[in-house]
Amino acid sequence: MKEPYYAVIFTSIQTDQIEGYSEMAVAMENLAKLQPGFIGVESAKEDIGITISYWETIEAIKNWKDNLDHLIAQKLGKAQWYRWYKVRICKVEREYEFNSD
Amino acid sequence: MKEPYYAVIFTSIQTDQIEGYSEMAVAMENLAKLQPGFIGVESAKEDIGITISYWETIEAIKNWKDNLDHLIAQKLGKAQWYRWYKVRICKVEREYEFNSD
Repeated sequence: MKEPYYAVIFTSIQTDQIEGYSEMAVAMENLAKLQPGFIGVESAKEDIGITISYWETIEAIKNWKDNLDHLIAQKLGKAQWYRWYKVRICKVEREYEFNSD
Repeated sequence: MKEPYYAVIFTSIQTDQIEGYSEMAVAMENLAKLQPGFIGVESAKEDIGITISYWETIEAIKNWKDNLDHLIAQKLGKAQWYRWYKVRICKVEREYEFNSD
């Protein structure tokens, strides 16, 4: 992907009520992949969870935020799964990569 | 922190030669915190490692990239610890936060 494109950095701390969370996370990742302008997603979780999704445009991010199924997931997330989260909308201005091969 | 500020997204896959890696990671995090313009860092590792550092300006990121001790760490990282990594320099344009309290 050529810069500029966009990244949504989602960092979170979960509650102890994680019932249904994993299934929803998988469903939302699969749904995100179907959205126009979706580029990719990377995530890892230890003390905090970090999920970064990459998008072609700001409009694509807005459409995904307003997706009805995603809105339901966001609501459940606030009500149950997340103690805290932060969302950062970023413009990826430059990138470089290293491969040991 | 008020937007805009900057984020460096560092995603990586390690090799099996992780000797010395943890010590260096701690040392580099402590050193980064001393740099002018440093705001914070978040990281998590599962299949991939994700470390995001936040900075006030692009210049602060450049200075950190060129820091001598950091250059040595980068060199060791390429020679030994990382099979692959990708660095993305981003402008954080907007952010919002949720707290369940």
